[in-house]
Amino acid sequence: MKKEIKHIGVLGAGLVGALLSIYLKKRGYQVSLYEKREDMRKISTDFGRSINLALSRRGIKALEDVGIIEKVKKIMLPMEGRMMHSQSGELTFQPYGKDGQFINSISRGNLNRILLDEAEANGVEIKFGYTCKNVDVKNTSVTFETPETEKTLQFDLLFGSDGGYSQVRQAMAKTDRFNFEQYYIPHGYKELSIPATEEGDFAIAPNALHIWPRGQYMLIALPNLDRSFTCTLFFPFEGHPSFESLQTPQQVLNFFKNTFPDSLPHLKNIQDEYFKNPTASLVTIKCEPWVKNNCVLIGDAAHAIVPFYGQGMNAGFEDCWELNLLLDKYDDDWEDALKEYQKLRKKDGDAIANLALHNFVEMRDLVADDKFLVQKKIEAKLHEQFPEKWIPLYSMVTFSDLRYSEAYEIGKKQQVIMDEVMQKPDILENWESVDLEQIVRKLES
Amino acid sequence: MKKEIKHIGVLGAGLVGALLSIYLKKRGYQVSLYEKREDMRKISTDFGRSINLALSRRGIKALEDVGIIEKVKKIMLPMEGRMMHSQSGELTFQPYGKDGQFINSISRGNLNRILLDEAEANGVEIKFGYTCKNVDVKNTSVTFETPETEKTLQFDLLFGSDGGYSQVRQAMAKTDRFNFEQYYIPHGYKELSIPATEEGDFAIAPNALHIWPRGQYMLIALPNLDRSFTCTLFFPFEGHPSFESLQTPQQVLNFFKNTFPDSLPHLKNIQDEYFKNPTASLVTIKCEPWVKNNCVLIGDAAHAIVPFYGQGMNAGFEDCWELNLLLDKYDDDWEDALKEYQKLRKKDGDAIANLALHNFVEMRDLVADDKFLVQKKIEAKLHEQFPEKWIPLYSMVTFSDLRYSEAYEIGKKQQVIMDEVMQKPDILENWESVDLEQIVRKLES
Repeated sequence: MKKEIKHIGVLGAGLVGALLSIYLKKRGYQVSLYEKREDMRKISTDFGRSINLALSRRGIKALEDVGIIEKVKKIMLPMEGRMMHSQSGELTFQPYGKDGQFINSISRGNLNRILLDEAEANGVEIKFGYTCKNVDVKNTSVTFETPETEKTLQFDLLFGSDGGYSQVRQAMAKTDRFNFEQYYIPHGYKELSIPATEEGDFAIAPNALHIWPRGQYMLIALPNLDRSFTCTLFFPFEGHPSFESLQTPQQVLNFFKNTFPDSLPHLKNIQDEYFKNPTASLVTIKCEPWVKNNCVLIGDAAHAIVPFYGQGMNAGFEDCWELNLLLDKYDDDWEDALKEYQKLRKKDGDAIANLALHNFVEMRDLVADDKFLVQKKIEAKLHEQFPEKWIPLYSMVTFSDLRYSEAYEIGKKQQVIMDEVMQKPDILENWESVDLEQIVRKLES
Repeated sequence: MKKEIKHIGVLGAGLVGALLSIYLKKRGYQVSLYEKREDMRKISTDFGRSINLALSRRGIKALEDVGIIEKVKKIMLPMEGRMMHSQSGELTFQPYGKDGQFINSISRGNLNRILLDEAEANGVEIKFGYTCKNVDVKNTSVTFETPETEKTLQFDLLFGSDGGYSQVRQAMAKTDRFNFEQYYIPHGYKELSIPATEEGDFAIAPNALHIWPRGQYMLIALPNLDRSFTCTLFFPFEGHPSFESLQTPQQVLNFFKNTFPDSLPHLKNIQDEYFKNPTASLVTIKCEPWVKNNCVLIGDAAHAIVPFYGQGMNAGFEDCWELNLLLDKYDDDWEDALKEYQKLRKKDGDAIANLALHNFVEMRDLVADDKFLVQKKIEAKLHEQFPEKWIPLYSMVTFSDLRYSEAYEIGKKQQVIMDEVMQKPDILENWESVDLEQIVRKLES
């Protein structure tokens, strides 16, 4: 690690790269941000990029930190809980937390635009249309193909905020002793949409994240500012039913009619969208080290996760927030700060990756299970009566500042206790009479 | 999968590629084998390639199958057990199995030469000095840089037997939904040597695998035909002591004098070798699928493992043996055969990878533990009295045909039972009076 850091390169001007560049610029560094795509503020395409995002506590605290939360609030749509749609169309609402706690549906594109504006306003140099051809980990340099020419730029420090398929990470992976894991789940996803009604209203309740849980797969819907919903079908690639097995418009229609009947009247363009929109895969990436020479991984480049906890962006933003704290702590001694950054965040990245994988089972299957819902109710009561002593796992992850790794460990302990509680034969009828104090004591022991 | 397979390309003429090509040629296919290095039969370098190999049951059955075991026997050196060297120079011998069961020290280079001769004699086309520049998974083609020119060759089927850093696998990894994991242990290895004595004899007992177990690290030695031993130091990269901490010839000498005192008189060139020989890393690789379009992974390319169970080559040879069996079973219907090959061998590859990681702890640490050795003795007695009902894990892996995955599961069950047995307070004194029949019944239940 070179001690004197002046010029920092940031590869990838997505959400995390843009936020990171603001943080670094505010600390007084010369910051250059490179992006292979064109400036999204000049051309308007969000298409196929990804599902809607859920902004919560960890992301918000970073946006507050750099002073742009007020601008972001204007494009946030609160979702106070899950609205489950049963096969017969029955609705069940399950709050995410306590009164006043909610997560926020937000458009990736709109948030990215705000961050880029802010980066530019702070004096970050942003270069669009710069395609990375090669990363030299030893020399902290990147060779770009630019709109005009090919050039190699050298930095004092280089951040890879270039996402799940990070080229900085790929260059680091070619050095010796780089641990790496990529795991695709057997499900893919496809975006569909519920447009606003003819009267210009939301077609279904706007203040919730809608889920049609169906065991091995699910449909979800998140509200947009224009009163439409972005829906995502999470569905196996192969088997029956699967993306592979639904081949004709008629098969798709029949499948939705039988499986998600109450969604069908709202999915106005389903036949068109189902066949036009891409089927994308879902990957978890873990690696180590995150820091090699003067190259550093951050966000999805370091820890791509599946979207089922709504924490991908929040985890990346918290990386930036934490790194900034550590630079405060170590007075901008990068060697010490990065050492601790990797040590702390790698553990947290692994934890949220595992939590996200597990939450898919919860969303697609358990939320339709009576016993599971009763457990959630007991935990909500525990939290109400012992707000400091029993915080449900979802709340620790979504509404607290507790490290992901700690939340994960506490959550495992809670689950063991709750498994025992739920074994009582009459628990479904008499859940309101369980001894809450005794449960809390077990967690403390 | 294309049904009509005539011309098969095999990338990598190491041990597994050479054996595979013999099997395929014997089945009547046109087989071309490509190797980036020069013909090892014409130039003599084994240097730095890897530690000695231990050939056992699974490898031997494949060599029998293709009819070359008699040739191979001439270069095999039996090792009947582990010879442990304590810090004070005390020797303890622990047999690997029952009387007449042993593993075999063999030179990678010599075995590879026999396999290449045999492949050529069978009519396999072998091209040396062919460097793979690109693999096209979709077209089953490979672009080579040859001594004369660059050319692209197309096959009906392509096998990647190109080792831990397989280019076929890397090409497959660029397609969607390829699960991949590479994990480096914190230890590296370095080869040293014990030459034959001035009288031309083995300097230490030849019929054993020697281990100097020291908790976090170890030195081992395997005999060679020329009566020398190849030694390998498995040692942490960082920390104290480590490859990093031993910087001067004097530090190395002192370290060996204190840690492996009885080895030092035999390590005639230690100062020279320690600094000249490379420090190599140790990786475990798991991936899936092994079959994509008409490309297939085999051996280390599919499942690189650490060397501590002596099973890397044996597992690769068993891949070939199993594939050949499946081609018999499915009458050379490659689609069916490869489907089952992947299904069966992936599970076995994962199992032996995990077993090999665990065996490092056993070799470097547990074999110096009294309690562990008593457990081994009890298990040996169990095996003697109930030869079919209790086969120690090492024997299942090394001397049986049981699937690795089954051995792994049975081994876990045995360990739970033995943990309980070993908890008896007087077990070290009274191990000979434990109720063996009761132990066996537990395994059966």
